[in-house]
Amino acid sequence: MAEIVTAAMLVIGDEILSGRTKDRNAGHLAEIMTATGIDLREVRIVPDDEAEIVAAVNALRSRYDYVFTSGGIGPTHDDITADAIAKAFGVPCEYDARAMALLEESYAKRAMEFTDARKRMARMPRGADHIDNPVSTAPGFRIGNVHVMAGVPSIFQAMLDNVVPTLRTGTKLLSATVQCLFGEGVIGGPLAEIQKAHPDTIIGSYPKYLDGGFSTDIVVRARTPEALESGRAAVEAMVAGLPK
Amino acid sequence: MAEIVTAAMLVIGDEILSGRTKDRNAGHLAEIMTATGIDLREVRIVPDDEAEIVAAVNALRSRYDYVFTSGGIGPTHDDITADAIAKAFGVPCEYDARAMALLEESYAKRAMEFTDARKRMARMPRGADHIDNPVSTAPGFRIGNVHVMAGVPSIFQAMLDNVVPTLRTGTKLLSATVQCLFGEGVIGGPLAEIQKAHPDTIIGSYPKYLDGGFSTDIVVRARTPEALESGRAAVEAMVAGLPK
Repeated sequence: MAEIVTAAMLVIGDEILSGRTKDRNAGHLAEIMTATGIDLREVRIVPDDEAEIVAAVNALRSRYDYVFTSGGIGPTHDDITADAIAKAFGVPCEYDARAMALLEESYAKRAMEFTDARKRMARMPRGADHIDNPVSTAPGFRIGNVHVMAGVPSIFQAMLDNVVPTLRTGTKLLSATVQCLFGEGVIGGPLAEIQKAHPDTIIGSYPKYLDGGFSTDIVVRARTPEALESGRAAVEAMVAGLPK
Repeated sequence: MAEIVTAAMLVIGDEILSGRTKDRNAGHLAEIMTATGIDLREVRIVPDDEAEIVAAVNALRSRYDYVFTSGGIGPTHDDITADAIAKAFGVPCEYDARAMALLEESYAKRAMEFTDARKRMARMPRGADHIDNPVSTAPGFRIGNVHVMAGVPSIFQAMLDNVVPTLRTGTKLLSATVQCLFGEGVIGGPLAEIQKAHPDTIIGSYPKYLDGGFSTDIVVRARTPEALESGRAAVEAMVAGLPK
Protein backbone atom coordinates (compact mmCIF):
# COMPACT_ATOMS: atom_id res chain seq x y z
CA MET A 1 0.00 0.00 0.00
CA ALA A 2 1.23 3.44 -0.87
CA GLU A 3 1.66 5.62 2.18
CA ILE A 4 0.67 9.23 1.70
CA VAL A 5 2.33 11.98 3.73
CA THR A 6 1.05 15.51 3.15
CA ALA A 7 2.44 18.99 3.67
CA ALA A 8 1.53 22.64 3.29
CA MET A 9 3.60 25.78 3.12
CA LEU A 10 2.88 29.18 4.64
CA VAL A 11 4.87 32.07 3.18
CA ILE A 12 4.77 35.09 5.49
CA GLY A 13 5.60 38.59 4.33
CA ASP A 14 4.20 41.89 3.06
CA GLU A 15 7.10 42.12 0.62
CA ILE A 16 5.91 39.05 -1.27
CA LEU A 17 2.32 40.33 -1.56
CA SER A 18 3.49 43.76 -2.70
CA GLY A 19 5.54 42.19 -5.50
CA ARG A 20 8.74 43.71 -4.16
CA THR A 21 10.25 40.30 -3.51
CA LYS A 22 9.51 37.21 -5.57
CA ASP A 23 9.02 34.14 -3.43
CA ARG A 24 11.42 31.35 -4.27
CA ASN A 25 10.97 29.23 -1.16
CA ALA A 26 7.64 27.62 -2.12
CA GLY A 27 9.06 26.37 -5.42
CA HIS A 28 12.16 25.06 -3.69
CA LEU A 29 10.12 23.29 -1.00
CA ALA A 30 7.90 21.79 -3.72
CA GLU A 31 10.91 20.24 -5.45
CA ILE A 32 12.35 18.87 -2.21
CA MET A 33 9.00 17.43 -1.07
CA THR A 34 8.49 15.67 -4.40
CA ALA A 35 12.01 14.23 -4.26
CA THR A 36 11.44 13.14 -0.67
CA GLY A 37 8.06 11.47 -1.12
CA ILE A 38 5.86 14.02 0.62
CA ASP A 39 2.85 15.53 -1.18
CA LEU A 40 2.81 19.32 -0.99
CA ARG A 41 -0.93 19.99 -1.12
CA GLU A 42 -1.33 23.70 -0.49
CA VAL A 43 0.61 26.95 -0.29
CA ARG A 44 -0.64 30.15 1.29
CA ILE A 45 0.99 33.55 1.27
CA VAL A 46 -0.16 35.93 4.02
CA PRO A 47 0.99 39.37 5.21
CA ASP A 48 2.91 40.26 8.39
CA ASP A 49 -0.31 40.25 10.38
CA GLU A 50 -0.67 38.19 13.52
CA ALA A 51 -4.34 37.26 13.11
CA GLU A 52 -3.75 36.16 9.51
CA ILE A 53 -0.74 34.04 10.42
CA VAL A 54 -2.54 32.41 13.36
CA ALA A 55 -5.62 31.58 11.27
CA ALA A 56 -3.59 30.18 8.39
CA VAL A 57 -1.23 28.08 10.50
CA ASN A 58 -4.12 26.60 12.48
CA ALA A 59 -6.06 25.80 9.28
CA LEU A 60 -3.03 24.12 7.75
CA ARG A 61 -1.57 22.24 10.71
CA SER A 62 -4.86 20.50 11.46
CA ARG A 63 -5.21 19.37 7.87
CA TYR A 64 -1.76 18.27 6.74
CA ASP A 65 0.97 16.08 8.26
CA TYR A 66 3.55 18.86 8.07
CA VAL A 67 3.53 22.64 7.75
CA PHE A 68 6.55 24.69 6.71
CA THR A 69 6.70 28.43 7.10
CA SER A 70 9.13 30.98 5.69
CA GLY A 71 9.68 34.56 6.75
CA GLY A 72 9.23 36.84 9.72
CA ILE A 73 11.83 35.44 12.14
CA GLY A 74 14.38 38.26 11.96
CA PRO A 75 15.16 40.95 14.54
CA THR A 76 12.79 43.76 13.50
CA HIS A 77 9.34 44.89 14.61
CA ASP A 78 7.70 43.34 11.53
CA ASP A 79 9.14 39.92 12.37
CA ILE A 80 6.17 38.53 14.26
CA THR A 81 6.15 34.89 13.20
CA ALA A 82 7.40 33.45 16.53
CA ASP A 83 4.69 35.28 18.47
CA ALA A 84 2.00 34.28 15.99
CA ILE A 85 2.98 30.60 16.05
CA ALA A 86 3.04 30.62 19.87
CA LYS A 87 -0.45 32.14 19.85
CA ALA A 88 -1.64 29.52 17.35
CA PHE A 89 -0.45 26.79 19.72
CA GLY A 90 -1.69 28.58 22.84
CA VAL A 91 1.73 28.68 24.51
CA PRO A 92 3.89 31.64 25.63
CA CYS A 93 6.57 33.03 23.33
CA GLU A 94 9.76 33.44 25.31
CA TYR A 95 13.53 33.87 25.08
CA ASP A 96 14.98 30.40 24.55
CA ALA A 97 18.04 29.93 26.75
CA ARG A 98 19.95 27.80 24.26
CA ALA A 99 19.23 30.21 21.39
CA MET A 100 20.31 33.15 23.57
CA ALA A 101 23.60 31.39 24.33
CA LEU A 102 24.20 30.56 20.67
CA LEU A 103 23.56 34.13 19.53
CA GLU A 104 25.53 35.69 22.36
CA GLU A 105 28.56 33.58 21.49
CA SER A 106 28.21 34.30 17.79
CA TYR A 107 28.05 38.08 18.25
CA ALA A 108 30.86 38.02 20.83
CA LYS A 109 33.09 36.19 18.34
CA ARG A 110 32.44 38.89 15.76
CA ALA A 111 32.85 41.67 18.35
CA MET A 112 29.32 42.83 17.63
CA GLU A 113 26.85 44.09 20.18
CA PHE A 114 24.09 41.64 21.17
CA THR A 115 21.37 44.25 20.80
CA ASP A 116 17.78 43.90 22.01
CA ALA A 117 16.75 43.56 18.36
CA ARG A 118 19.12 40.64 17.92
CA LYS A 119 17.83 39.07 21.14
CA ARG A 120 14.39 38.96 19.52
CA MET A 121 15.74 36.20 17.28
CA ALA A 122 16.07 33.93 20.34
CA ARG A 123 12.31 34.11 21.03
CA MET A 124 10.25 31.02 20.29
CA PRO A 125 7.14 29.25 21.53
CA ARG A 126 7.71 27.36 24.78
CA GLY A 127 8.57 23.73 24.03
CA ALA A 128 9.85 24.36 20.50
CA ASP A 129 12.91 22.51 19.16
CA HIS A 130 15.64 24.30 17.25
CA ILE A 131 16.19 24.08 13.52
CA ASP A 132 19.89 24.73 13.04
CA ASN A 133 20.94 27.68 10.91
CA PRO A 134 24.44 27.05 9.56
CA VAL A 135 24.37 30.31 7.58
CA SER A 136 23.72 33.01 10.17
CA THR A 137 23.26 31.20 13.54
CA ALA A 138 19.76 32.41 14.56
CA PRO A 139 17.80 29.14 14.66
CA GLY A 140 14.42 28.34 13.21
CA PHE A 141 12.19 26.10 15.27
CA ARG A 142 9.72 23.25 15.19
CA ILE A 143 6.65 23.01 17.34
CA GLY A 144 4.22 20.14 16.81
CA ASN A 145 4.08 19.55 13.06
CA VAL A 146 5.00 23.15 12.17
CA HIS A 147 8.52 24.01 10.99
CA VAL A 148 9.36 27.71 11.14
CA MET A 149 12.18 28.86 8.88
CA ALA A 150 13.79 32.02 7.55
CA GLY A 151 12.64 33.89 4.46
CA VAL A 152 16.08 34.57 3.00
CA PRO A 153 16.32 31.73 0.44
CA SER A 154 19.88 30.60 1.25
CA ILE A 155 18.95 30.28 4.93
CA PHE A 156 15.56 28.69 4.21
CA GLN A 157 17.28 26.07 2.07
CA ALA A 158 19.95 25.33 4.65
CA MET A 159 17.34 24.97 7.41
CA LEU A 160 15.19 22.73 5.22
CA ASP A 161 18.20 20.49 4.59
CA ASN A 162 18.38 20.02 8.36
CA VAL A 163 14.66 19.29 8.63
CA VAL A 164 14.23 16.78 5.80
CA PRO A 165 16.02 13.84 7.51
CA THR A 166 13.63 14.19 10.48
CA LEU A 167 10.46 13.83 8.38
CA ARG A 168 8.36 10.72 7.90
CA THR A 169 8.13 10.20 4.16
CA GLY A 170 5.56 8.46 2.03
CA THR A 171 5.76 6.39 -1.11
CA LYS A 172 7.44 8.58 -3.66
CA LEU A 173 5.34 9.78 -6.55
CA LEU A 174 7.27 8.64 -9.63
CA SER A 175 6.93 10.61 -12.83
CA ALA A 176 7.66 10.31 -16.52
CA THR A 177 7.34 13.01 -19.16
CA VAL A 178 6.30 12.42 -22.77
CA GLN A 179 6.93 15.31 -25.09
CA CYS A 180 4.38 16.01 -27.75
CA LEU A 181 4.62 18.46 -30.62
CA PHE A 182 0.87 18.94 -30.67
CA GLY A 183 -1.15 21.28 -28.52
CA GLU A 184 -3.61 20.14 -25.90
CA GLY A 185 -6.50 20.64 -28.31
CA VAL A 186 -5.37 17.63 -30.33
CA ILE A 187 -4.47 15.30 -27.48
CA GLY A 188 -7.12 16.36 -24.96
CA GLY A 189 -9.68 13.74 -26.01
CA PRO A 190 -7.41 10.67 -26.17
CA LEU A 191 -5.55 11.76 -23.02
CA ALA A 192 -8.79 11.86 -21.03
CA GLU A 193 -9.48 8.28 -22.20
CA ILE A 194 -6.03 7.17 -21.06
CA GLN A 195 -6.51 8.83 -17.67
CA LYS A 196 -9.85 6.99 -17.30
CA ALA A 197 -8.22 3.65 -18.19
CA HIS A 198 -5.33 4.24 -15.74
CA PRO A 199 -6.95 5.37 -12.49
CA ASP A 200 -3.76 4.61 -10.51
CA THR A 201 -1.91 7.36 -12.39
CA ILE A 202 -2.23 11.13 -12.36
CA ILE A 203 -1.81 12.46 -15.88
CA GLY A 204 -1.20 16.14 -16.40
CA SER A 205 -0.52 18.05 -19.56
CA TYR A 206 1.42 21.28 -19.60
CA PRO A 207 1.23 23.47 -22.67
CA LYS A 208 4.13 25.58 -23.78
CA TYR A 209 3.35 28.50 -25.98
CA LEU A 210 6.26 29.57 -28.12
CA ASP A 211 6.59 31.35 -31.46
CA GLY A 212 2.86 31.28 -32.07
CA GLY A 213 2.36 27.53 -31.55
CA PHE A 214 1.65 25.19 -28.67
CA SER A 215 3.53 22.07 -27.76
CA THR A 216 2.80 19.94 -24.72
CA ASP A 217 4.63 18.06 -22.00
CA ILE A 218 2.51 15.16 -20.83
CA VAL A 219 3.47 14.10 -17.32
CA VAL A 220 2.40 10.73 -15.92
CA ARG A 221 2.72 10.21 -12.18
CA ALA A 222 2.18 7.06 -10.13
CA ARG A 223 3.31 5.45 -6.89
CA THR A 224 4.48 2.14 -8.40
CA PRO A 225 6.89 1.61 -11.32
CA GLU A 226 4.32 -0.75 -12.93
CA ALA A 227 1.50 1.81 -12.91
CA LEU A 228 3.88 4.48 -14.17
CA GLU A 229 5.15 2.36 -17.04
CA SER A 230 1.68 1.27 -18.07
CA GLY A 231 0.43 4.88 -18.17
CA ARG A 232 3.57 6.16 -19.87
CA ALA A 233 3.40 3.48 -22.57
CA ALA A 234 -0.24 4.30 -23.28
CA VAL A 235 0.57 8.01 -23.65
CA GLU A 236 3.57 7.32 -25.83
CA ALA A 237 1.54 5.05 -28.12
CA MET A 238 -1.15 7.72 -28.42
CA VAL A 239 1.40 10.42 -29.28
CA ALA A 240 3.15 8.12 -31.81
CA GLY A 241 -0.20 7.54 -33.51
CA LEU A 242 -0.86 11.24 -34.14
CA PRO A 243 -0.66 12.43 -37.77
CA LYS A 244 2.85 13.77 -38.51
CA MET B 1 -9.82 59.24 3.43
CA ALA B 2 -7.78 56.50 1.85
CA GLU B 3 -9.94 53.97 0.07
CA ILE B 4 -8.79 50.38 0.42
CA VAL B 5 -9.55 47.81 -2.27
CA THR B 6 -8.41 44.25 -1.59
CA ALA B 7 -7.63 41.24 -3.72
CA ALA B 8 -6.56 37.62 -3.45
CA MET B 9 -5.03 35.22 -5.93
CA LEU B 10 -5.75 31.53 -6.38
CA VAL B 11 -3.13 29.60 -8.34
CA ILE B 12 -4.51 26.27 -9.56
CA GLY B 13 -2.30 23.39 -10.64
CA ASP B 14 -0.63 20.16 -9.56
CA GLU B 15 2.47 21.14 -11.55
CA ILE B 16 3.13 24.11 -9.26
CA LEU B 17 2.78 22.03 -6.07
CA SER B 18 5.05 19.29 -7.46
CA GLY B 19 7.75 21.85 -8.18
CA ARG B 20 7.74 20.99 -11.87
CA THR B 21 6.64 24.49 -12.84
CA LYS B 22 7.57 27.62 -10.91
CA ASP B 23 4.65 29.98 -10.52
CA ARG B 24 5.32 33.42 -11.94
CA ASN B 25 1.77 34.70 -12.09
CA ALA B 26 1.36 35.55 -8.40
CA GLY B 27 4.48 37.72 -8.43
CA HIS B 28 3.33 39.46 -11.60
CA LEU B 29 -0.16 40.08 -10.21
CA ALA B 30 1.41 41.43 -7.00
CA GLU B 31 3.38 44.03 -8.96
CA ILE B 32 0.40 45.07 -11.05
CA MET B 33 -1.90 45.33 -8.02
CA THR B 34 0.59 47.52 -6.17
CA ALA B 35 1.00 49.77 -9.21
CA THR B 36 -2.78 49.96 -9.58
CA GLY B 37 -3.68 50.75 -5.97
CA ILE B 38 -5.19 47.41 -4.98
CA ASP B 39 -3.91 45.54 -1.92
CA LEU B 40 -3.10 41.91 -2.66
CA ARG B 41 -3.80 40.32 0.73
CA GLU B 42 -3.51 36.59 0.19
CA VAL B 43 -2.34 34.00 -2.31
CA ARG B 44 -3.28 30.33 -2.26
CA ILE B 45 -1.96 27.53 -4.43
CA VAL B 46 -4.21 24.47 -4.68
CA PRO B 47 -4.11 21.28 -6.78
CA ASP B 48 -6.34 20.34 -9.74
CA ASP B 49 -9.03 19.10 -7.36
CA GLU B 50 -12.58 20.37 -7.63
CA ALA B 51 -13.40 20.35 -3.91
CA GLU B 52 -10.18 22.24 -3.11
CA ILE B 53 -10.81 24.86 -5.79
CA VAL B 54 -14.43 25.36 -4.73
CA ALA B 55 -13.51 25.73 -1.06
CA ALA B 56 -10.66 28.16 -1.77
CA VAL B 57 -12.56 30.36 -4.21
CA ASN B 58 -15.53 30.61 -1.85
CA ALA B 59 -13.28 31.47 1.09
CA LEU B 60 -11.49 34.16 -0.91
CA ARG B 61 -14.37 35.75 -2.82
CA SER B 62 -16.36 36.37 0.33
CA ARG B 63 -13.41 38.04 1.99
CA TYR B 64 -11.76 40.22 -0.64
CA ASP B 65 -13.03 42.70 -3.24
CA TYR B 66 -11.45 40.80 -6.10
CA VAL B 67 -10.19 37.29 -6.71
CA PHE B 68 -7.90 36.35 -9.58
CA THR B 69 -7.24 32.76 -10.57
CA SER B 70 -4.64 31.26 -12.89
CA GLY B 71 -4.55 27.82 -14.43
CA GLY B 72 -6.84 24.97 -15.37
CA ILE B 73 -8.78 26.50 -18.27
CA GLY B 74 -7.23 24.54 -21.14
CA PRO B 75 -8.71 21.71 -23.20
CA THR B 76 -7.64 18.63 -21.22
CA HIS B 77 -9.27 16.44 -18.57
CA ASP B 78 -7.24 18.05 -15.79
CA ASP B 79 -8.52 21.52 -16.71
CA ILE B 80 -11.42 21.69 -14.29
CA THR B 81 -11.38 25.34 -13.24
CA ALA B 82 -14.54 26.38 -15.16
CA ASP B 83 -16.56 23.57 -13.59
CA ALA B 84 -15.20 24.28 -10.13
CA ILE B 85 -15.97 28.01 -10.35
CA ALA B 86 -19.51 27.28 -11.62
CA LYS B 87 -19.98 24.94 -8.66
CA ALA B 88 -18.67 27.57 -6.26
CA PHE B 89 -21.27 30.02 -7.59
CA GLY B 90 -24.03 27.39 -7.77
CA VAL B 91 -24.67 27.89 -11.49
CA PRO B 92 -24.38 25.46 -14.41
CA CYS B 93 -21.17 25.29 -16.45
CA GLU B 94 -22.08 25.35 -20.12
CA TYR B 95 -20.77 25.97 -23.62
CA ASP B 96 -20.80 29.74 -24.13
CA ALA B 97 -22.19 30.54 -27.58
CA ARG B 98 -19.92 33.54 -28.15
CA ALA B 99 -16.82 31.64 -27.06
CA MET B 100 -17.80 28.71 -29.30
CA ALA B 101 -18.11 31.09 -32.27
CA LEU B 102 -14.75 32.74 -31.51
CA LEU B 103 -12.94 29.44 -31.24
CA GLU B 104 -14.66 27.92 -34.27
CA GLU B 105 -13.61 30.87 -36.38
CA SER B 106 -10.06 30.82 -35.05
CA TYR B 107 -9.56 27.11 -35.79
CA ALA B 108 -11.24 27.40 -39.21
CA LYS B 109 -8.81 30.20 -40.15
CA ARG B 110 -5.88 27.97 -39.25
CA ALA B 111 -7.46 24.94 -40.99
CA MET B 112 -7.41 23.06 -37.68
CA GLU B 113 -10.10 20.74 -36.46
CA PHE B 114 -12.39 22.14 -33.73
CA THR B 115 -12.07 19.02 -31.57
CA ASP B 116 -14.23 18.19 -28.56
CA ALA B 117 -11.19 18.92 -26.39
CA ARG B 118 -10.92 22.42 -27.89
CA LYS B 119 -14.66 22.94 -27.39
CA ARG B 120 -14.06 22.44 -23.65
CA MET B 121 -12.34 25.83 -23.67
CA ALA B 122 -15.69 27.48 -24.49
CA ARG B 123 -17.25 26.20 -21.27
CA MET B 124 -17.89 28.71 -18.53
CA PRO B 125 -20.32 29.33 -15.68
CA ARG B 126 -23.70 30.64 -16.87
CA GLY B 127 -23.73 34.44 -16.72
CA ALA B 128 -19.95 34.87 -16.92
CA ASP B 129 -18.39 37.67 -18.99
CA HIS B 130 -15.43 37.07 -21.27
CA ILE B 131 -11.88 38.15 -20.56
CA ASP B 132 -10.30 38.59 -23.97
CA ASN B 133 -7.27 36.49 -24.84
CA PRO B 134 -5.26 38.26 -27.55
CA VAL B 135 -2.60 35.54 -27.50
CA SER B 136 -4.48 32.32 -28.23
CA THR B 137 -8.20 33.26 -28.51
CA ALA B 138 -9.74 31.01 -25.82
CA PRO B 139 -11.20 33.55 -23.40
CA GLY B 140 -10.94 33.69 -19.64
CA PHE B 141 -14.01 34.82 -17.77
CA ARG B 142 -15.33 36.90 -14.91
CA ILE B 143 -18.21 35.91 -12.69
CA GLY B 144 -19.07 38.06 -9.69
CA ASN B 145 -15.79 39.32 -8.29
CA VAL B 146 -13.78 36.33 -9.57
CA HIS B 147 -11.54 36.67 -12.63
CA VAL B 148 -10.51 33.37 -14.18
CA MET B 149 -7.37 33.46 -16.31
CA ALA B 150 -4.89 31.13 -17.99
CA GLY B 151 -1.82 29.66 -16.31
CA VAL B 152 0.62 30.22 -19.20
CA PRO B 153 2.32 33.45 -18.05
CA SER B 154 2.18 35.29 -21.40
CA ILE B 155 -1.56 34.65 -21.63
CA PHE B 156 -2.18 35.40 -17.96
CA GLN B 157 -0.44 38.73 -18.37
CA ALA B 158 -2.34 39.64 -21.52
CA MET B 159 -5.66 38.77 -19.88
CA LEU B 160 -4.76 40.74 -16.78
CA ASP B 161 -3.98 43.78 -18.94
CA ASN B 162 -7.57 43.54 -20.19
CA VAL B 163 -8.97 43.20 -16.68
CA VAL B 164 -7.11 45.99 -14.91
CA PRO B 165 -9.01 48.91 -16.54
CA THR B 166 -12.31 47.39 -15.32
CA LEU B 167 -11.27 47.31 -11.65
CA ARG B 168 -12.18 49.78 -8.95
CA THR B 169 -8.90 50.94 -7.45
CA GLY B 170 -8.03 52.31 -4.05
CA THR B 171 -5.61 54.93 -2.87
CA LYS B 172 -2.23 53.79 -4.07
CA LEU B 173 0.23 52.67 -1.43
CA LEU B 174 3.29 54.83 -2.07
CA SER B 175 6.69 53.52 -1.14
CA ALA B 176 10.24 54.71 -0.60
CA THR B 177 13.31 52.60 0.01
CA VAL B 178 16.23 53.60 2.22
CA GLN B 179 19.32 51.47 1.82
CA CYS B 180 21.31 50.65 4.89
CA LEU B 181 24.68 48.96 5.09
CA PHE B 182 23.88 47.55 8.50
CA GLY B 183 21.96 44.38 9.23
CA GLU B 184 18.60 44.30 10.95
CA GLY B 185 20.22 43.55 14.29
CA VAL B 186 21.60 47.08 14.44
CA ILE B 187 18.58 48.97 13.14
CA GLY B 188 15.84 46.78 14.62
CA GLY B 189 15.44 48.78 17.83
CA PRO B 190 15.38 52.32 16.36
CA LEU B 191 13.23 51.16 13.44
CA ALA B 192 10.57 49.85 15.81
CA GLU B 193 10.54 53.28 17.49
CA ILE B 194 10.08 55.01 14.15
CA GLN B 195 7.23 52.66 13.23
CA LYS B 196 5.54 53.45 16.55
CA ALA B 197 5.91 57.20 15.97
CA HIS B 198 4.55 56.93 12.41
CA PRO B 199 1.40 54.80 12.67
CA ASP B 200 0.19 55.95 9.23
CA THR B 201 3.12 54.21 7.58
CA ILE B 202 4.01 50.55 7.14
CA ILE B 203 7.74 50.09 7.60
CA GLY B 204 9.34 46.87 6.48
CA SER B 205 12.97 45.86 6.46
CA TYR B 206 14.36 43.31 4.08
CA PRO B 207 17.73 41.79 4.83
CA LYS B 208 20.06 40.77 2.07
CA TYR B 209 22.67 38.23 2.95
CA LEU B 210 25.69 38.41 0.70
CA ASP B 211 29.33 37.45 1.11
CA GLY B 212 28.91 36.67 4.78
CA GLY B 213 27.34 39.98 5.80
CA PHE B 214 23.86 41.44 5.99
CA SER B 215 22.69 44.71 4.53
CA THR B 216 19.11 45.93 4.66
CA ASP B 217 16.57 47.65 2.45
CA ILE B 218 14.17 49.62 4.60
CA VAL B 219 10.87 50.19 2.82
CA VAL B 220 8.42 52.82 4.03
CA ARG B 221 4.87 52.67 2.66
CA ALA B 222 2.01 55.11 3.12
CA ARG B 223 -1.12 56.29 1.36
CA THR B 224 -0.29 60.01 1.37
CA PRO B 225 2.90 61.69 0.16
CA GLU B 226 3.12 63.57 3.48
CA ALA B 227 3.05 60.44 5.62
CA LEU B 228 5.53 58.78 3.28
CA GLU B 229 7.97 61.67 3.41
CA SER B 230 7.75 62.00 7.17
CA GLY B 231 8.46 58.29 7.66
CA ARG B 232 11.19 58.22 5.05
CA ALA B 233 12.96 61.23 6.56
CA ALA B 234 12.90 59.65 10.01
CA VAL B 235 14.40 56.43 8.67
CA GLU B 236 17.05 58.30 6.70
CA ALA B 237 18.05 60.35 9.73
CA MET B 238 18.33 57.17 11.81
CA VAL B 239 20.50 55.46 9.19
CA ALA B 240 22.69 58.56 8.80
CA GLY B 241 23.27 58.57 12.56
CA LEU B 242 24.66 55.03 12.66
CA PRO B 243 28.38 54.67 13.34
CA LYS B 244 30.29 54.46 10.06
